[in-house]
Amino acid sequence: MKIAIMGFGVVGSGVYEVIESGNDSIAKRAGEPIEIKHILDLRDFPDHERSEIFTKSFDDIINDSEIELVAEVIGGLNPAYDYTKRLLTAGKSVVTSNKELVACHGTELLELAAQNGAQYMFEASVGGGIPIIRPINSCLAANSITDIMGILNGTTNYILTRMIKDNQSFEEALAGAQERGYAERDPSADIEGKDTCRKIAILASLAFERFVNSDEIPTEGITKITLEDVVFAESQGKVIKLVGMASKVGDKVFAKVCPVMMDKSHPLAGVEDVFNGVLLHADNVGDVLFYGRGAGKLPTASAVVADIIDVMRHKNTPQRKLWSGTAEVLPKIPEEVKAKLSENGITVLYN
Amino acid sequence: MKIAIMGFGVVGSGVYEVIESGNDSIAKRAGEPIEIKHILDLRDFPDHERSEIFTKSFDDIINDSEIELVAEVIGGLNPAYDYTKRLLTAGKSVVTSNKELVACHGTELLELAAQNGAQYMFEASVGGGIPIIRPINSCLAANSITDIMGILNGTTNYILTRMIKDNQSFEEALAGAQERGYAERDPSADIEGKDTCRKIAILASLAFERFVNSDEIPTEGITKITLEDVVFAESQGKVIKLVGMASKVGDKVFAKVCPVMMDKSHPLAGVEDVFNGVLLHADNVGDVLFYGRGAGKLPTASAVVADIIDVMRHKNTPQRKLWSGTAEVLPKIPEEVKAKLSENGITVLYN
Repeated sequence: MKIAIMGFGVVGSGVYEVIESGNDSIAKRAGEPIEIKHILDLRDFPDHERSEIFTKSFDDIINDSEIELVAEVIGGLNPAYDYTKRLLTAGKSVVTSNKELVACHGTELLELAAQNGAQYMFEASVGGGIPIIRPINSCLAANSITDIMGILNGTTNYILTRMIKDNQSFEEALAGAQERGYAERDPSADIEGKDTCRKIAILASLAFERFVNSDEIPTEGITKITLEDVVFAESQGKVIKLVGMASKVGDKVFAKVCPVMMDKSHPLAGVEDVFNGVLLHADNVGDVLFYGRGAGKLPTASAVVADIIDVMRHKNTPQRKLWSGTAEVLPKIPEEVKAKLSENGITVLYN
Repeated sequence: MKIAIMGFGVVGSGVYEVIESGNDSIAKRAGEPIEIKHILDLRDFPDHERSEIFTKSFDDIINDSEIELVAEVIGGLNPAYDYTKRLLTAGKSVVTSNKELVACHGTELLELAAQNGAQYMFEASVGGGIPIIRPINSCLAANSITDIMGILNGTTNYILTRMIKDNQSFEEALAGAQERGYAERDPSADIEGKDTCRKIAILASLAFERFVNSDEIPTEGITKITLEDVVFAESQGKVIKLVGMASKVGDKVFAKVCPVMMDKSHPLAGVEDVFNGVLLHADNVGDVLFYGRGAGKLPTASAVVADIIDVMRHKNTPQRKLWSGTAEVLPKIPEEVKAKLSENGITVLYN
């Protein structure tokens, strides 16, 4: 299948690498090899081994009738939103790692895909390479998921882990994360919890089958966490973690992003450094945990490519309605959620 | 879609329950409701709410042209093997929790399904309700999996946990497991490691894409583990766990089932009681862990029903070749596997 990659940053170059290095086994698993025909980026890559396939014009992709699928790994809302709409309208499938776009416009884009015989897939948007979107959609399809709690941001988890283990202040730990490339120069989306907020909104929309608007989720990051807080938690046999949580409450949804104190025996307490973990509770299966590298070039790229392989395997399967309507998001923690949290040894900070 | 259930034991009655209680949302997710038309069991169930659909004759199912799919939850090789062959030959899809059958005859049954436009699915055969088969096949399709280590048997993990936490002898812990219904009256398949062996053989076949014969996997259970061993491990900051492991070594495979001592910081060390955990290592994504209830009526049944929903969603997708050929299984631990184990704080007992 002929595809295009939009965006040749960390994830985009990873997608190229995963495809080029694994195309023999990909062809076995997908039924045919993947041929990368265009790469869209505004920058020049004159020394790239396939510099001839780079383009700065989106028209080269949208007007190429041979292109059946595009990997959108530009990130951010613009121009990704406009490009994705036009591609899906043209019947081209889109796979993406763009959590912001999925969280803001997922409903419309899934609808567009369904209307035009295309697919819109986003396994890489949450948890990097950890299988999480597909397990919710397929493996747990005979369950009703009631609660989600996740450590969904590697940057903040790295910072908290360094504070806990190395007695570093928040500022020291952040500087160390930036040195190692785990935090961006402007780390606000991570440390203020916005990244976690988008991811829990996506997971909640899938799990509860109604769109959960990330703007309605009360979000508190880790900027106010001090070394004293961390030491106090330790003295209580607990650790401080930034989590995104979402629960079904009747036909409504409660969701929140905030630092919590959790017992060291909690399944998420051992998720350290840049790792992510997602704990789901469902009616039939009980608790299920997924754990792995939640970010990074090759993990994220491999999730993008898994979506490409999935589209190739199921070319004639129409896009399924993953959610319908919009959930009413409760503004305050309901008593039943409070009770569940305390039963599981979780204390919400800054309630 | 009209289906039949073969075997109305713990899992079979769970499949009935999951479908009947969740059919509205199943219909939304699968495109149509599931209609259970026959239940095959040699026993009588005169008081069942739908006693009229019970039959003792396999002919009622194989000769019913309306039946498109059968859930085989009889377990064991006979008559499940013969029935499954005849169903697949007739073009009827089969979903199963039968690890023994998949481990012994999976290659032939997958082939039969492919030849006759049917599907053969077995998510429930490993890890109960934990999504593990589908993540290996789909989510990690852009990875080459190199190593698997799993706590795959809830009975033995419960026994070891009670020895570790309550200072019980092996015999006491086994008796307690039997009292709670976690161990069968004849617990040999569990405590001698055979159950774990079949499961690691299935995971290895899927991950390495060649059939791994469970008969060739050296298997040692937990019957020789004493309370002294457990106490010694504890004094070293370690725990004893029964694991199934498999690694790719060049174009060959090494696999083994045995008790190991592992550091308490190992991701599998916290998998306690009847829970299961599977740790995969793959080239792009690194380590990924799946954790949850590995057995039990509703978890296992929900995995069977997830497979049914999958078949309904992808009626026109032919059975994919999940593995081809047979792997050469190395009889002794290769040095490179030894090195990896010791790097991860794992000591093999009874080497």
